[in-house]
Amino acid sequence: MTSTDTRPSSQTPSERLTSLGSRLRAQLDGPYGHERAAARAEFPAENLLRDPELGVEESRDWVLDRLRELEAAGFGSAGVPDGANSVSDPLTAVVTFETLAHGDLSVTIKSGVQFGLFGGAVMNLGTEWHHETYLPDITALRLLGAFAMTELGHGSDVQHLETTFTYLPETDEIEVHSPTPGATKAYLGNAATHGTMAAVFGQLQVDGVNHGVHTVLVPIRDDEGRDAPGVTTGDHGHKGGLLGVDNGTLRFDHVRVPRRMLLNRYGGIADDGTYESSIENPNRRFFTMLGTLVRGRVCIAAGSGIAARRALSIAVRHGLRRRQFPAPGRPEGVLLLDYQTHQRRLLPLVARSYALGFAQNELTGRLIHIQGGGEHTEEDQRELELRAAGLKAMTSRFANDAVQEAREACGGAGYMSENRIVGIREDVDVFATFEGDNTVLLQLVAKGMLGGYAEEWKALDRAGVMQATTRMVGEAVGERTSARLLSQRLADTARRGPESTTLVDRGWHALMFEEREKHALGSLARRIRAATKGGGDRFEAINRLGGHMQFVARAHVERLVLEAFMEALDACEDPETRDVMERVCSLYALSSIHEDRAWFMEHQRISTGRSKAIGDQIDALCRELRPHALPLVEGLGVPAEWLRAAILED
Amino acid sequence: MTSTDTRPSSQTPSERLTSLGSRLRAQLDGPYGHERAAARAEFPAENLLRDPELGVEESRDWVLDRLRELEAAGFGSAGVPDGANSVSDPLTAVVTFETLAHGDLSVTIKSGVQFGLFGGAVMNLGTEWHHETYLPDITALRLLGAFAMTELGHGSDVQHLETTFTYLPETDEIEVHSPTPGATKAYLGNAATHGTMAAVFGQLQVDGVNHGVHTVLVPIRDDEGRDAPGVTTGDHGHKGGLLGVDNGTLRFDHVRVPRRMLLNRYGGIADDGTYESSIENPNRRFFTMLGTLVRGRVCIAAGSGIAARRALSIAVRHGLRRRQFPAPGRPEGVLLLDYQTHQRRLLPLVARSYALGFAQNELTGRLIHIQGGGEHTEEDQRELELRAAGLKAMTSRFANDAVQEAREACGGAGYMSENRIVGIREDVDVFATFEGDNTVLLQLVAKGMLGGYAEEWKALDRAGVMQATTRMVGEAVGERTSARLLSQRLADTARRGPESTTLVDRGWHALMFEEREKHALGSLARRIRAATKGGGDRFEAINRLGGHMQFVARAHVERLVLEAFMEALDACEDPETRDVMERVCSLYALSSIHEDRAWFMEHQRISTGRSKAIGDQIDALCRELRPHALPLVEGLGVPAEWLRAAILED
Repeated sequence: MTSTDTRPSSQTPSERLTSLGSRLRAQLDGPYGHERAAARAEFPAENLLRDPELGVEESRDWVLDRLRELEAAGFGSAGVPDGANSVSDPLTAVVTFETLAHGDLSVTIKSGVQFGLFGGAVMNLGTEWHHETYLPDITALRLLGAFAMTELGHGSDVQHLETTFTYLPETDEIEVHSPTPGATKAYLGNAATHGTMAAVFGQLQVDGVNHGVHTVLVPIRDDEGRDAPGVTTGDHGHKGGLLGVDNGTLRFDHVRVPRRMLLNRYGGIADDGTYESSIENPNRRFFTMLGTLVRGRVCIAAGSGIAARRALSIAVRHGLRRRQFPAPGRPEGVLLLDYQTHQRRLLPLVARSYALGFAQNELTGRLIHIQGGGEHTEEDQRELELRAAGLKAMTSRFANDAVQEAREACGGAGYMSENRIVGIREDVDVFATFEGDNTVLLQLVAKGMLGGYAEEWKALDRAGVMQATTRMVGEAVGERTSARLLSQRLADTARRGPESTTLVDRGWHALMFEEREKHALGSLARRIRAATKGGGDRFEAINRLGGHMQFVARAHVERLVLEAFMEALDACEDPETRDVMERVCSLYALSSIHEDRAWFMEHQRISTGRSKAIGDQIDALCRELRPHALPLVEGLGVPAEWLRAAILED
Repeated sequence: MTSTDTRPSSQTPSERLTSLGSRLRAQLDGPYGHERAAARAEFPAENLLRDPELGVEESRDWVLDRLRELEAAGFGSAGVPDGANSVSDPLTAVVTFETLAHGDLSVTIKSGVQFGLFGGAVMNLGTEWHHETYLPDITALRLLGAFAMTELGHGSDVQHLETTFTYLPETDEIEVHSPTPGATKAYLGNAATHGTMAAVFGQLQVDGVNHGVHTVLVPIRDDEGRDAPGVTTGDHGHKGGLLGVDNGTLRFDHVRVPRRMLLNRYGGIADDGTYESSIENPNRRFFTMLGTLVRGRVCIAAGSGIAARRALSIAVRHGLRRRQFPAPGRPEGVLLLDYQTHQRRLLPLVARSYALGFAQNELTGRLIHIQGGGEHTEEDQRELELRAAGLKAMTSRFANDAVQEAREACGGAGYMSENRIVGIREDVDVFATFEGDNTVLLQLVAKGMLGGYAEEWKALDRAGVMQATTRMVGEAVGERTSARLLSQRLADTARRGPESTTLVDRGWHALMFEEREKHALGSLARRIRAATKGGGDRFEAINRLGGHMQFVARAHVERLVLEAFMEALDACEDPETRDVMERVCSLYALSSIHEDRAWFMEHQRISTGRSKAIGDQIDALCRELRPHALPLVEGLGVPAEWLRAAILED
């Protein structure tokens, strides 16, 4: 970790932060303070935001122009290698994505499609020929491409894609085909107008054998924008947001491409026309290929977090300027942020922004380690994927809620596009769906936590199941990170008398978060065991546990988030900053406990009396943090000059 | 109430409803089945929805054209009298507003601005000359007008508007002036381009005395669209939705209008230049004037409900077509609505749609009675206002949540404008803010429930306060409607052993809803008493009760909603329909109790064991209602052909 002293100032050249704001920002920037500060300082902010009145076509043009401008300024392909001999730089990729998320989110997403998804597929799934042939043009925006995974009939179900790749030995070609309307590739950025190639996902058939999902590069239109022979492109037109991203559809009618267009890092076709792969198990191969694409989810989580911070920055700053209704002793009207209801709607969201930000730093660290060439096991990769899925789901959900709350907290002004919040909301909405539907992702997390035990249980007797369940819960919550050890030490102390701790006792928070996760996971395991044992409709039996699985996954991510916050607190050496951060952490932790306080009472983790006190404690923390509201939003890292909200400008 | 037999079919000519769907719709249409069915049958649905690609200017033009088309078809000014000798028809006004809400919501809102607000001000606050002079042109759309109440500095605080009306006896004129930038009238529909007049709210000064807020008609631009002398109009431009409504600003620089332009029904200036009013108390006069405008809130609540029903209709119908992931016994994939998580996210919202719909019928009934010339007391008017404020806040909150849930439940398809949900969401967002910010409205409801007691307490000793509090709680929840009596009878039975009732026992639901409201109101009263007794900062002491007041108001509205549902059940004579409705009611009631189950445990109303069982009971109700999903959305009253969602059309 870079020490605080050698970091560049966390302020942009034109910012005048409060001292506390600057220090909070340095804490939240964390180990990537150097890179983030540099990105903030160098980001070309003149054309930051698109005119909301631009229509679909104009928006698409504006976004492509902006991408070229950013690319010229070094904010384009950052992190994606521009050829076979460069290396991927995951840290720059994530920081660039985050920085772009301070501007028009269509630019962020189109950049993500071009460099992260399309470029990422070529980089991660292709081999040297692909890298040499395509990466220079991709990174220089001479070749725009779509990432053609999703099909109309298969949004979340990648394993059952219908598109087929049939190897034709007579011509040494691969025939790409969409056998049904449901096989139509859909919602693809760059597909409607700008893309001339697509990284298409489909089932590879060699000599009559299906080898599962692979990826083939397919030219989709010529330089004049005409559909390639056999390809039918479609345009989704107007959307709920991200108007500057040209989402479209692709259908293939027996389109032939040379064999070498198959991205063959994990599975390919040898010169003799036989299938070859370094990974024998097709299931493992599938998940290995998908696993390389984890960076997309890390980026979407990061971008969601930034979107929320922007909206909260606008709403909190507005709340510090706007007065409404005179009151005794306040003839000029009460500042919005002095109303308890207003504090309560915004400050817990600010606290959660910090918490998710620390967790995002931790996640980014794992990505950098693994994709930056660090030594790691398959287990590490799997842990990265689960955390990325979980944090993406939680942060994009949070972003949607926070942005809407910010909108309403600004009243009628919040609804005017010139104040920017509605634009952010329209754009961030779909973050809850793309790169994995949130419900499906949380289910994935829960299944990951259960691990292979569901299979193992079948062979065990009652005592064996008990043991296996205990072991599984231990493993799922037991990864021995330093954050985990710190948290456990505090929790163990609180465990001796939970009800006699104060409500802001960090150990008690840690204990509650851990108990929530452990108990919910253990009971889920027991219910799954019972469901799979019975003779009835097995789908229906597991289906009924859907809500329970969502709860387990959320409890898991919440615990990881708290631990990341605690580790950041532990590393903070400045007492004043730490004092404020401790309250922010308590506000986050208590808000999470408060949200689930019914569960804690139902499971005898909190008495009814203690539960009643939590709401008042949250109010008290809001009052304590109210004087620091400005430094707190400064710390969120959004330069005021980038907000461009008319209500903040007079 | 019209008997079922004489009602026109609840289906539009081209609908083919299931039998159950048709019967459910008749129930939800309720006492206004005749009018609603007629409106559905006659509504010109060809140009129902605006092309989402239209820009701001094109949208405004389209909406004005559509308004003229509707007016010609009898769906324009319906309910607003077209002259001094016609009478206002509140039922037609509400049903027309509801019907319009099935189409482009900009049309609905612009219609509401023109006829409901601008026309309503002239009708309710003006006298014969105003009616004769302006209503014919207003209803025929020859005179378009703005309702200029809100000021930039005073969104929710009408009593402290800064705009001044100074009577000038020498010329017998009124001078309209905006003394500060904060006095600028803002967010006004019809102000940006189409309006040529405004009903302006401001402080009336006669002979140096301020007589409080009054309304003056002020010409704002000429027929060529040029600002009138002294008037500066502004344009809010692009917004988060409702692009077809031309919201703008107005500033007045010593603009003079003849005295007769003052809408003088409740307060005016006599020929001798003195102020005269039939209502002596300025406070009472102010609230009487505002009270006549209650129809706006009733309509916004109704429109919010329709918006939610449209989005839920799309999402549920999609969930009955879309399959995802194969499962044992379901090789072709599982229908989305067969997933428990999917049922749980949509069906409780459908149930709540019904519940709010029955409450809306009840509210509409009160409006019709009072504004249709029925005998009523001041207390009746006050009750109407409180219910309108509460239901507007609850239904617009619900609409925002439900539409967003519907969007996400449709995945990527939900984000495409062609599937209509995002357009509804963008438009309905501001329903949470206009016609009264929801937070402010719920505070109003809570204050109304406390009545005059806060003042009375000061003079009482401890025992007196106890008695007064008991009396107040009794009065607030005690209005002796037939619904109330029915509910109390059932609750009294359940009270003998609440924990031994089943979770679907209606008496237990009624008891819980009543206990929540009574206990929360009583404890709020005690806390207010304590807060006002102390010597400290009185604002701050009351301010800390902000969250508690919101809870009390919500609990109150929830109880009224449940009672309206129970009354509808009581009136339903068809056993099969009633059986389904009973489950829908249980799903609504249990969802509400589940949401607040922490409160119920904290206040010893529900044991932890019973609380745990509620979630499972909700799941079970979802499963029981799942086979009726199609009839349930048919019952919501949105003809399938009006949904116009591409995903439902192939």
